[in-house]
Amino acid sequence: MNFCSDNVAGIAPEILEAIARANAGTMPSYGGDEITARVEKRLGEIFEREVWAFPVTTGTAANALALSTLTPPYGAVYCHPEAHIMVDECGAPELYTGGAKLVPIAGAGGKISARDVAETLDNARAGDVHHVQPAAVSLTQASECGTAYTVAEVGAIAAVTKKHGVKLHMDGARFANAVAHLNVTPADITWKAGVDVLSFGATKNGALAAEAVVFFDKELAASFGFRRKRAGHLISKMRFISAQLDAYLTNDLWLRLARHANAMAQKLVGGLQSVPGVHLLYPVEANEIFIRLPLQTLAGLRQAGFQFYDWPGAAPGTIRLVTSFATSAADVDAFIAKANTLAKAA
Amino acid sequence: MNFCSDNVAGIAPEILEAIARANAGTMPSYGGDEITARVEKRLGEIFEREVWAFPVTTGTAANALALSTLTPPYGAVYCHPEAHIMVDECGAPELYTGGAKLVPIAGAGGKISARDVAETLDNARAGDVHHVQPAAVSLTQASECGTAYTVAEVGAIAAVTKKHGVKLHMDGARFANAVAHLNVTPADITWKAGVDVLSFGATKNGALAAEAVVFFDKELAASFGFRRKRAGHLISKMRFISAQLDAYLTNDLWLRLARHANAMAQKLVGGLQSVPGVHLLYPVEANEIFIRLPLQTLAGLRQAGFQFYDWPGAAPGTIRLVTSFATSAADVDAFIAKANTLAKAA
Amino acid sequence: MNFCSDNVAGIAPEILEAIARANAGTMPSYGGDEITARVEKRLGEIFEREVWAFPVTTGTAANALALSTLTPPYGAVYCHPEAHIMVDECGAPELYTGGAKLVPIAGAGGKISARDVAETLDNARAGDVHHVQPAAVSLTQASECGTAYTVAEVGAIAAVTKKHGVKLHMDGARFANAVAHLNVTPADITWKAGVDVLSFGATKNGALAAEAVVFFDKELAASFGFRRKRAGHLISKMRFISAQLDAYLTNDLWLRLARHANAMAQKLVGGLQSVPGVHLLYPVEANEIFIRLPLQTLAGLRQAGFQFYDWPGAAPGTIRLVTSFATSAADVDAFIAKANTLAKAA
Amino acid sequence: MNFCSDNVAGIAPEILEAIARANAGTMPSYGGDEITARVEKRLGEIFEREVWAFPVTTGTAANALALSTLTPPYGAVYCHPEAHIMVDECGAPELYTGGAKLVPIAGAGGKISARDVAETLDNARAGDVHHVQPAAVSLTQASECGTAYTVAEVGAIAAVTKKHGVKLHMDGARFANAVAHLNVTPADITWKAGVDVLSFGATKNGALAAEAVVFFDKELAASFGFRRKRAGHLISKMRFISAQLDAYLTNDLWLRLARHANAMAQKLVGGLQSVPGVHLLYPVEANEIFIRLPLQTLAGLRQAGFQFYDWPGAAPGTIRLVTSFATSAADVDAFIAKANTLAKAA
Repeated sequence: MNFCSDNVAGIAPEILEAIARANAGTMPSYGGDEITARVEKRLGEIFEREVWAFPVTTGTAANALALSTLTPPYGAVYCHPEAHIMVDECGAPELYTGGAKLVPIAGAGGKISARDVAETLDNARAGDVHHVQPAAVSLTQASECGTAYTVAEVGAIAAVTKKHGVKLHMDGARFANAVAHLNVTPADITWKAGVDVLSFGATKNGALAAEAVVFFDKELAASFGFRRKRAGHLISKMRFISAQLDAYLTNDLWLRLARHANAMAQKLVGGLQSVPGVHLLYPVEANEIFIRLPLQTLAGLRQAGFQFYDWPGAAPGTIRLVTSFATSAADVDAFIAKANTLAKAA
Repeated sequence: MNFCSDNVAGIAPEILEAIARANAGTMPSYGGDEITARVEKRLGEIFEREVWAFPVTTGTAANALALSTLTPPYGAVYCHPEAHIMVDECGAPELYTGGAKLVPIAGAGGKISARDVAETLDNARAGDVHHVQPAAVSLTQASECGTAYTVAEVGAIAAVTKKHGVKLHMDGARFANAVAHLNVTPADITWKAGVDVLSFGATKNGALAAEAVVFFDKELAASFGFRRKRAGHLISKMRFISAQLDAYLTNDLWLRLARHANAMAQKLVGGLQSVPGVHLLYPVEANEIFIRLPLQTLAGLRQAGFQFYDWPGAAPGTIRLVTSFATSAADVDAFIAKANTLAKAA
Repeated sequence: MNFCSDNVAGIAPEILEAIARANAGTMPSYGGDEITARVEKRLGEIFEREVWAFPVTTGTAANALALSTLTPPYGAVYCHPEAHIMVDECGAPELYTGGAKLVPIAGAGGKISARDVAETLDNARAGDVHHVQPAAVSLTQASECGTAYTVAEVGAIAAVTKKHGVKLHMDGARFANAVAHLNVTPADITWKAGVDVLSFGATKNGALAAEAVVFFDKELAASFGFRRKRAGHLISKMRFISAQLDAYLTNDLWLRLARHANAMAQKLVGGLQSVPGVHLLYPVEANEIFIRLPLQTLAGLRQAGFQFYDWPGAAPGTIRLVTSFATSAADVDAFIAKANTLAKAA
Repeated sequence: MNFCSDNVAGIAPEILEAIARANAGTMPSYGGDEITARVEKRLGEIFEREVWAFPVTTGTAANALALSTLTPPYGAVYCHPEAHIMVDECGAPELYTGGAKLVPIAGAGGKISARDVAETLDNARAGDVHHVQPAAVSLTQASECGTAYTVAEVGAIAAVTKKHGVKLHMDGARFANAVAHLNVTPADITWKAGVDVLSFGATKNGALAAEAVVFFDKELAASFGFRRKRAGHLISKMRFISAQLDAYLTNDLWLRLARHANAMAQKLVGGLQSVPGVHLLYPVEANEIFIRLPLQTLAGLRQAGFQFYDWPGAAPGTIRLVTSFATSAADVDAFIAKANTLAKAA
């Protein structure tokens, strides 16, 4: 029973079937196939407007390549100090942007505030050649703390970025989980709120390896095809990446999978609230739980076969629990029961 | 009937089944799974020595990341002027190496000679700060002209590179086709001949998207994991990439698929030899045919539904025909018959 | 009367004369001249050991190129959040290192502590491919707050970096001022304390445009010549850069100039201590004073022709005053007198 | 008597005096001084239009930074295979452009033809993501073979580049020598002919270290200030770089110096024509002579103290002789006399 991450899960059956189904005869390579065209069309329907969409196979590639279209090499990209692009991508944004600088803007619960973005941009010395120049803000939706930006929060940040001529990127590795939680339309939480480009994740939510970089601005998208190829991220047998996204976007599969993962997280955190000594770090608004439990309880859970990560930089006993489309209610119940038993025995 | 490239074909059934089989339960992500470990072990068996192997999803990534371990940013990488790394990767080697320079060494039939490598390296002004410094030679096996370097040819080049302290890379996007044609062991044509790192291709030969960068030198491999992650090429659900390679390497599937593709190429070129007005550009030693046919014949073939590429930079009427693991004898027969009919009618 | 920076001053007479003296006849270009050789020798004498020294024309180039020899592109370079390399070089370190990440370690008075370096490196996740890898620590001597690291402080930090296999760089744009203040030998405060490479500044202290990157480790120096040329920082008529350094290093000119600048700073801060409403931010240990004065006083000083910078990120009324080799006692007296008059009138 | 290069000469007296003259009192740093403003104005007068000019200290920096404003990282810059940017800058263009590719276009006498540029651009596969994208052409004026492009030749090339939306750069390290030879206005041979940006050299022609990057397009210039600072090429005491250019541009000093160098080259080649066994490689249109002499003659000249370079890649006995503003008629006479004596003795 593995709660380490949503990427320890496999492929959703509908997506695996779509891959198999796509394996008939020959098709043009490098995205010239009809499935890839259909994916862009489907994304347009879901986002209620024309979009320019590019499938890639990892979230890191999606983020770093997206950012490379938003900043010159001497630019600054602002993000939360715990953002995936800041700490978990081994410098990919720096590679793809040609050395742009990620500048942290701290904020509670993994989110940055419009007020802090404004203060930062007001003091960014735009136009002064001695300093990297403000280019983009990147938000993670759902955030690295499992919280979600509301439409109002994104809109307020976008108002500031627009004022300063700075672009807005959304890292949506868990976009489906955020949308499912917020119960908003994809359009409302992205371009209608002011997002310029979205890393639309699917891998963590049931795909084999598929993300789409979705542009809401044609001009920003213009160089992406070259940047993707140059990064070795243009998959030759693209139909099989697109087939994953096609299935993911069909009949709301993406939201159904995310709702399940979110529901499992709610069930899990609900059950753990009653465990003695428990401390929840952030509200659970997606499929991640950051929680502190007695060390002895954690040791017992691990002995019983439950897997999860200690959370670095937090107090001892702080762990992260991630649910996925594949997490079963039985696994959650087992975790809760074991945690209760262990805590009460202590 | 599509002869444009081997990447217009789909997934070999054994490989698709392996993906489905890998989709059971949870597994550690990012390559911590047992299938990935097994792939490295299998590659060790096939190459008859310890290797350090890293799965990636594209040949461009394999090549460019491999080269980034061989050259400083002020280095020179020598290759054929028609090499994939030179003309078909939109500058990926330059991106990943931090700006190293690809320097062409011309040669007949898509191959460079040990003699020309020696002359180039003798005049490379090693140690002079005004010039990029010799760092690596890259050979394509099978070459972009569908020819294969013999063991003796690779060995002779390696003798030169070793003398100059320069590393030897092999772009093996069609390595299987070359090995099948040469009828040598994988060890003989790589590390025993002096190759330091191999881009071991599988995608063109039946995988969904899987290549392995295979190092024969532990020290060179040391930075690869970081470089791969930083490039966004560390797939989170790695088991599904490794499962492809695992199946590919099992029971000689990789060679069986390549032998079929090669046999179809031989059959095709054999049948075309008798077409009036035909001119074969290079010996067919893998699964690619470069051939000139009357323009009218080509037009007729296309009208009949056959697909293939005009070859840029060559005389009018020059086309490339590529066979794959999935090419049927019937398709080949149909192509030959149609070409003969058309040519005779002219 | 300009206290904006030490780089608003001109060239020390001895240095200008040396340039004129070097202008006789032809000399080998690109550093093959005898003056350049002599500079390296003189630096060896001053540092009491063999060094590998490379003249460049700016501090930014010296720092960024030095760092490029210490870190892979996926590395982390730790420095104070106010370090010149972090905020004032428009991303030069990111450019020259190929995208390495500057990671801040906060500390009082512009200095970072061995304790905080230790804590940071202990938690840096060395070996984990998801994160940039600890490569170097950079200290500014004298610091951006006008303070100086003691021999003990540098030694303590170096003990930590050595333990973690991390290199130690010293940004010595105002190295002379620090050495003059500390009254230590150049050897004691650098390689004997554990510094691997020093950006040895001269421009701010009387040169036209000359800095030397001084390596105490031959292996680290090996790639520098190539990196410098590739950055366009190999001056063709090198003799004129080296002549500046030659004069600077002759008869302790560098220390005499720095002592004067430091003395003027002491005189200035001493005189300002008695101004009503004054608040000194940091101890004055070099030639920079960070001080808060009443806004009215500042306005009056500016009206009277005194020039200085408001300090960004500090409380209103905080300014920086910099003295140089060329600052006269009369100028300092005039500033003090005016400040007193204005403050008392308020 | 050193004919190795024009950069073995020192500083022209007028320029050295200007440096000394600029050394009075304080001045704003980083180019905020009045001398720097005057230089831009003077360049505007010389080029008969508004220009945006940026002083730097090396030709390599001027070229590579200029190119970085003309090409995306996935772009192609076309130049002669012997161009300085191609072979003598240790990869600086690749560094500053973020990895763009220099693509050779061969041509006689160090020059490329409009016809070959057209053929290359027609086949560059613009818009195809697999290939680097045509971005700029760079011409060297005077060329690496000591020849000069005529106004008609530059204009014909510019007509092609404009048609393809490609920018035109001129490497004018020896621009003064070319203008002096061609007897045209600076405007005619640059922007009026279609040049977008010029590396305007002064170092080889009498400056200590000064070049100006001159833009004829405001938009292209917009990012240059940031790129220059980020490269460590923004000199803090800029007044001393600008003072060199100011003197250089005053009273046609730049042309007078170049005319002298050119005249010395004509005198030298004229005198050598009569030496038995001599072979001149290219017409002498600037201050460089590429010539073949008997090996014994060369040995004798060297024994007599004359210095010059063997030319790499050419037949044995091929040397380069470079004259400068400082070359004396006596030195030239001595060389000619000695060469004649030696050749006749053989």
